[in-house]
Amino acid sequence: MTPSLERHQRRYAEFGRLHAAPALVLPNAWDVVSARIVEDAGAAAIATTSAGVAWALGAADGNRVDRDLALGAVARIVVAVDVPVTADIETGFGETDAELAETIRGVLDAGAVGINIEDSGFAPLRPMEQQAARLRVVRAAAEASGRSLFINARVDTYLMSAGDVGDRLAETLRRSAAYLEAGADGIFVPGVTDLALLRQLLAAIPAPLNVLTGPGAPIVAELAEIGVRRISVGSALAQAAYGLVRRAASELLTDGTYRALERDLDYAELNRLVTARPEA
Amino acid sequence: MTPSLERHQRRYAEFGRLHAAPALVLPNAWDVVSARIVEDAGAAAIATTSAGVAWALGAADGNRVDRDLALGAVARIVVAVDVPVTADIETGFGETDAELAETIRGVLDAGAVGINIEDSGFAPLRPMEQQAARLRVVRAAAEASGRSLFINARVDTYLMSAGDVGDRLAETLRRSAAYLEAGADGIFVPGVTDLALLRQLLAAIPAPLNVLTGPGAPIVAELAEIGVRRISVGSALAQAAYGLVRRAASELLTDGTYRALERDLDYAELNRLVTARPEA
Repeated sequence: MTPSLERHQRRYAEFGRLHAAPALVLPNAWDVVSARIVEDAGAAAIATTSAGVAWALGAADGNRVDRDLALGAVARIVVAVDVPVTADIETGFGETDAELAETIRGVLDAGAVGINIEDSGFAPLRPMEQQAARLRVVRAAAEASGRSLFINARVDTYLMSAGDVGDRLAETLRRSAAYLEAGADGIFVPGVTDLALLRQLLAAIPAPLNVLTGPGAPIVAELAEIGVRRISVGSALAQAAYGLVRRAASELLTDGTYRALERDLDYAELNRLVTARPEA
Repeated sequence: MTPSLERHQRRYAEFGRLHAAPALVLPNAWDVVSARIVEDAGAAAIATTSAGVAWALGAADGNRVDRDLALGAVARIVVAVDVPVTADIETGFGETDAELAETIRGVLDAGAVGINIEDSGFAPLRPMEQQAARLRVVRAAAEASGRSLFINARVDTYLMSAGDVGDRLAETLRRSAAYLEAGADGIFVPGVTDLALLRQLLAAIPAPLNVLTGPGAPIVAELAEIGVRRISVGSALAQAAYGLVRRAASELLTDGTYRALERDLDYAELNRLVTARPEA
């Protein structure tokens, strides 16, 4: 199942180039068919949503899903798409350095060329030095494997409303610098969509900045215009899709009608999307 | 992972009772979160859609998905829900009797208390006697396991427009009788939603009749009123959900806006739905 080293390195290089302007837009996927739909809609890469992957497999978001099950979903997506795949691995599926390194080997075996890894989920944030040390473990594990990995380091200061609000921007920049120094390739600060604040982050962070967007946030063009290099939606696509499942199921069970089922994707088209093609 | 024999038999008995009037309505699910949403919306049982399961795992519908992967999805759904689960197993994932019996053992190990098994996918329909023989293999495999299994035998004459149109009703009834004699508990004739034709089927088939419904078909109350005991939607929920994925992804990649993402299911609510509860 693991793609050849040559294919991996080619996809990795392609993924790196996608972080130049214009911005890389990632409608996050969680299973093979959602990934193929996103690819078919024109995405240049596939990013997984850890929440969507976990929900589909039967676990809540936040390091509760079985690591091998989650990486199995990533591996199936990699096999099915032609574009680079980056995996959201929450906090890394393991507290010890050995477990974290094992996760990275699993990610690379699955064929992903990038990861998102977050500093939250721990009281609420890990101490900065501890997270930097974990990123060094990630970098070392990737180097030991001989396969390149784009590390998108998540700084969850804003998402978790961590620490003193007056110090939040400074803390975010301190963490960004420490994570880049530890080997991160990009910085992801979910929870910030204010354009003025984003401009401050962009001015101070010497690496591609990932913004989590969605309803209420500035549109993609506005984010790209100020220099945001990577734009993703987290679990929003999954939440919308399963929201429709709820509406359609409720309608069917309550009224016995089918209005919510009317706008569908054709059966034959879905079969076509998931039909295996020869490896590129 | 396999539920206790006592739990299995309790769920099986419950599932059988659900085939009495009023009709059992099954908004088919394909992964844990869709199953939990359907259960939470009030479904008395969960039926899987083979197409949805296959698409999510990266295969087209029609005996192309890896059997163990598909049964893994069924097992995860069984663990997550409190209601009985019935699994759509396409033609049975195997041509030989030994393979078919192995599939049935896998279904029962996964904890499902029922199956859908179809006579199509074979030029275009299997000869009736061959399919009846396969149903006897299914029944024997279930009996050997000591666990009860509700066999919903699909007659695909109408779905596949098989044979001479003038003989189609008679052939459907011949097959229904043969399959019931071979051990089926219910008959499923997808492709028929005409009320007059359904009345003819209902009058002639001495077992619960399953109708595949959806947009354009009579509403649930009309089907239930004439005596249809089981009403399902096949892959319609999955097609609607992934249709929304396509619209939202296209909008995001083309216009850079988020309208299709606005009606979602809350993140915390999705986490709640998939959070494991103590076994009932």
